[in-house]
Amino acid sequence: MANPTAAMLVIGDEILSGRTRDANMYHLAGRLNAHGVDLREVRVVGDEAADIVAALNELRRRWNHVFTSGGIGPTHDDITADCIAEAFGVGIDVRDDARAVLASNYPGGVADLTSARLRMARIPDGASLIDNPVSKAPGFQLENVYVMAGVPSVFEAMVESALPLITGGAPLMSESVRIDKGESDVAEPLALIASTYPSVSIGSYPFQRDGRFGTNIVLRSADRDSLDAATNAVRALAV
Amino acid sequence: MANPTAAMLVIGDEILSGRTRDANMYHLAGRLNAHGVDLREVRVVGDEAADIVAALNELRRRWNHVFTSGGIGPTHDDITADCIAEAFGVGIDVRDDARAVLASNYPGGVADLTSARLRMARIPDGASLIDNPVSKAPGFQLENVYVMAGVPSVFEAMVESALPLITGGAPLMSESVRIDKGESDVAEPLALIASTYPSVSIGSYPFQRDGRFGTNIVLRSADRDSLDAATNAVRALAV
Repeated sequence: MANPTAAMLVIGDEILSGRTRDANMYHLAGRLNAHGVDLREVRVVGDEAADIVAALNELRRRWNHVFTSGGIGPTHDDITADCIAEAFGVGIDVRDDARAVLASNYPGGVADLTSARLRMARIPDGASLIDNPVSKAPGFQLENVYVMAGVPSVFEAMVESALPLITGGAPLMSESVRIDKGESDVAEPLALIASTYPSVSIGSYPFQRDGRFGTNIVLRSADRDSLDAATNAVRALAV
Repeated sequence: MANPTAAMLVIGDEILSGRTRDANMYHLAGRLNAHGVDLREVRVVGDEAADIVAALNELRRRWNHVFTSGGIGPTHDDITADCIAEAFGVGIDVRDDARAVLASNYPGGVADLTSARLRMARIPDGASLIDNPVSKAPGFQLENVYVMAGVPSVFEAMVESALPLITGGAPLMSESVRIDKGESDVAEPLALIASTYPSVSIGSYPFQRDGRFGTNIVLRSADRDSLDAATNAVRALAV
């Protein structure tokens, strides 16, 4: 059976302006791969409601699961939760369970929940909360969409809370071979190996180090025997 | 006059599988911002022709410029040039100017151009070449689409070749203020400042360091006076 598919939607002007280097995409890609979920598309959009809603609706219809990062804090530019509610056509309001979780983060409890902080307890109707052990303010899941914070430490904690909710497939096995030759020197034999072992996906990734070019070959397959045979064939190119 | 807009299309299974951490998005975002071009959307897709063609056609119709990275090397999984030709409905073949540039990278000249290397001289009809001072194999421009390599050193060199082709607007001026308070403690006064200075875009970016939360406030505007006034108002929140 094919692995479930996923997409990621990164939300935030700070990524598109070049101010912040996104770290969450790389983290999520690795965790999904290990969990047997195929990440198939990533989109990055700014803090514009129409862009967020349109991207979310395309992604959630096309892929099995969608993970979002960013825009669920307490400030005026945090509009993700409202956009999710709009995309699903449901209401959104402060919810008792989210308020209780949030209050547990402050010494005065509910009395410390200013109106700004209460924004973080606004949850779309029908969603369930995603635990945030780092700073309490919860993420949430609505159908196949998992809404998480953009701060990397919080995002990563929420990913660990969300992954057990998803039934993954078999993680692909992979092998990699480093070849100290330029990519064009191995392209032809590599194409032959790829056509000989159709169950093995073979990627070729050139790199430059100390002024010389080399190529990393990555082989991936769910079939151990084919993977080993193809890997041996690639290793023979390295000598 | 509003700045021109841009999108980026990152192509490659290695990003989605979590094997490679993309570095090109952050680099391009910063360079475009400095050039007065607003990066509005990024998409990452795998080495699947249908996905590449569909994403490219959506992005090139929606935004003024589209920059792609990845998939223009010599191996079987490098299908970007063919996908660009398909998206534009034009032919693609080895072209004399690209072959000459490529040959200059090898001691034997044209005689060293194996069929794998010649793949890198296949250019869609009507495109003009983008100079690659690092490893010669050229990128290309077709209408509003700039097709560049995925290896960061080559990508960055190609960006510098492509940017002068684009008339940018005024780079936004920006100021940033670090506040050692949680985001929810400044959310309300910040919303007030944002509504007082509508020409200033104000972003709020929480961070966690040494176990404590703080907030970076970034203000951006093309209007110096409003930017200064809003920045002073934000600084007053920091004390």
